[in-house]
Amino acid sequence: MSIQYQPQDGASEPKWKTVWWEEDEQGATVCLVDQSVLPQEIVSLHLRHEQQVADAITSLKVRGAPAIGVTAAFGMALAVWRFVRDHEEATLITDEIMTQLQAAGKLLGRTRPTAVNLFWAIERMLQRAEQAVQQPLLPQQLAQLLRDEAQAIADEDAAACLSMGTLGASLIDDGDILLTHCNAGALATAGLGTALAPIYVAHRAGKHVHVFVDETRPILQGARLTAWELQQENIPLTLITDNMAGHFMRSGGINAVFVGADRIAANGDVANKIGTYSVAVLAHAHAIPFYVVAPCSTIDLKIPSGDHIPIEQRDPDEVIAVRGAQVAPVGVRVANPAFDVTPHQYVTAIITEKGIAHPPYDVSLGQICSEHNTI
Amino acid sequence: MSIQYQPQDGASEPKWKTVWWEEDEQGATVCLVDQSVLPQEIVSLHLRHEQQVADAITSLKVRGAPAIGVTAAFGMALAVWRFVRDHEEATLITDEIMTQLQAAGKLLGRTRPTAVNLFWAIERMLQRAEQAVQQPLLPQQLAQLLRDEAQAIADEDAAACLSMGTLGASLIDDGDILLTHCNAGALATAGLGTALAPIYVAHRAGKHVHVFVDETRPILQGARLTAWELQQENIPLTLITDNMAGHFMRSGGINAVFVGADRIAANGDVANKIGTYSVAVLAHAHAIPFYVVAPCSTIDLKIPSGDHIPIEQRDPDEVIAVRGAQVAPVGVRVANPAFDVTPHQYVTAIITEKGIAHPPYDVSLGQICSEHNTI
Repeated sequence: MSIQYQPQDGASEPKWKTVWWEEDEQGATVCLVDQSVLPQEIVSLHLRHEQQVADAITSLKVRGAPAIGVTAAFGMALAVWRFVRDHEEATLITDEIMTQLQAAGKLLGRTRPTAVNLFWAIERMLQRAEQAVQQPLLPQQLAQLLRDEAQAIADEDAAACLSMGTLGASLIDDGDILLTHCNAGALATAGLGTALAPIYVAHRAGKHVHVFVDETRPILQGARLTAWELQQENIPLTLITDNMAGHFMRSGGINAVFVGADRIAANGDVANKIGTYSVAVLAHAHAIPFYVVAPCSTIDLKIPSGDHIPIEQRDPDEVIAVRGAQVAPVGVRVANPAFDVTPHQYVTAIITEKGIAHPPYDVSLGQICSEHNTI
Repeated sequence: MSIQYQPQDGASEPKWKTVWWEEDEQGATVCLVDQSVLPQEIVSLHLRHEQQVADAITSLKVRGAPAIGVTAAFGMALAVWRFVRDHEEATLITDEIMTQLQAAGKLLGRTRPTAVNLFWAIERMLQRAEQAVQQPLLPQQLAQLLRDEAQAIADEDAAACLSMGTLGASLIDDGDILLTHCNAGALATAGLGTALAPIYVAHRAGKHVHVFVDETRPILQGARLTAWELQQENIPLTLITDNMAGHFMRSGGINAVFVGADRIAANGDVANKIGTYSVAVLAHAHAIPFYVVAPCSTIDLKIPSGDHIPIEQRDPDEVIAVRGAQVAPVGVRVANPAFDVTPHQYVTAIITEKGIAHPPYDVSLGQICSEHNTI
């Protein structure tokens, strides 16, 4: 169970991979770093069935909007790959494979409702398959083509991360003190990350930065994942509880906030990890720029505002117990929305791979991302 | 190891005691409910030495500004009681007892720097002793007199809680949805509580209220103590992580925020549990009244503003581990200020036992509390 570390070639690659595809004599596997046990354990999962991939998404073994999209794409390719291999002796017809692919899409689409990258990636895989089967094709060829499409989604996500990193780094000055919420780093994507990408690029370019990291209850992605990622990169950080953000905005010299997104509506309203809205309001009260970093695959031009974004409600046990330790009395009523919506008025700019969008977002987002989002 | 439950006589008494004095054939004990293990265990501690009392304060076995003050007062009485009993055979002179009392005051005064009630109670005990020893007095008489003074501080605190509850309940309407941060309930005082007292009084008077309870990392006083207290009273509550407060202010219909205080400066700046400032800014942004509830013993008219309030920095391990479960990578840098300061501009009113102070606080606080705080 080893984690794949990539050689680091300057500014373009993350130090490790979050999700990747492998093939061996038993077939194909979708591989993940199990983010539910980081940083105490570094375990890679090798999944051979799309149901395992769906379960990994639901149980947050992989999380982060872009990483979920990439994982779902690989999961769909895996479904076809496995199906074709299981029926090597039979003569499969294209319709059977398409039925399998659609079922995998439905399975994976039921995992989590908020991050739009999931639905975007599933739809792109389906469209690619439908387009491909217009021509005569062997089952193995279709399976390979879908694997290649999933890999393309991953590669494009990595390229998008680098582009967001480069664009976003222009907003970071030497000596800046930054704050981030949740984990929108390499672990949340197939590349350098979204919100952390500008920080990585700035740091690798020699700018001195210090990052305040919100621990991000209830799942503690900040404490467990962002703190660990920044440590690996030797970027100075201070871990804080979420409720300290205001205090350090008032007294800690924070210059800017960078967060990711799970879905951005056409008007620039941003759904992101619960607590993001509070951070945005606090940043606004302290006149601190609040930057959202997300690829165009996170932007949902089909919905007019954040009011239309479905917010996932997760298990109360995530709040009641912290890594197995009970922290509240038995039987207490708990709310556990996984996300909140930050109205666009609080967003200073949205950094995409195709450019930095400024208000009014109902104009700028369409200009930057409409081509990408025609899927 | 049983906890003392009091009979509940309507609106004036809490359901349990947080700190109390007992005497038996071995001497006197200061008794505490161990708040560091609530709500999983209900354990009462019987402390026979002032060093144990100091340790209990430092390790948060008792916490909450008024409760710390009462506990320190009992701790000073205990020091004298124990000293007199240990030297029953000798002929003690008053100076020896006063030296003992002053040493206990120093010991207890070193436990926690922010809550001013601690220093206020220590000073009051010292003044009472100095006044008493102007007259000829047997050592046992002085010990009893100091026990009575500590009990008076406790009784006055309970009365102050009831008064704050009655005054504050006038600000709560039937059907209100409230939010509180940390624990400022019966467990934080010798009576009904500070911030929770108005909620208790309103509820006992038949008003329907629902309370959003911030869990209050890192020590989780909200999840562990406030949720438990409200459960005991059958007051409907929803436990949330601290970072959800903004989301529910925006979408949950919250009508008012009630918090306690550890020290209030002459201008109305409020030091309270870390995260209070963020809640205050969020309440302000949503036009939600933000009420601070605290007895006059929490108001420090000697300091002009919150900038002069010492903020306790606690062990990083409180952030890194949650009830024994590690949540962050080894070696990570952590900030752990136990308190923050909310500037008076964010405070709608300060509810004391002597009346409700409104801005400008540099006038109103002096008018309400100056007599009380001449100690």
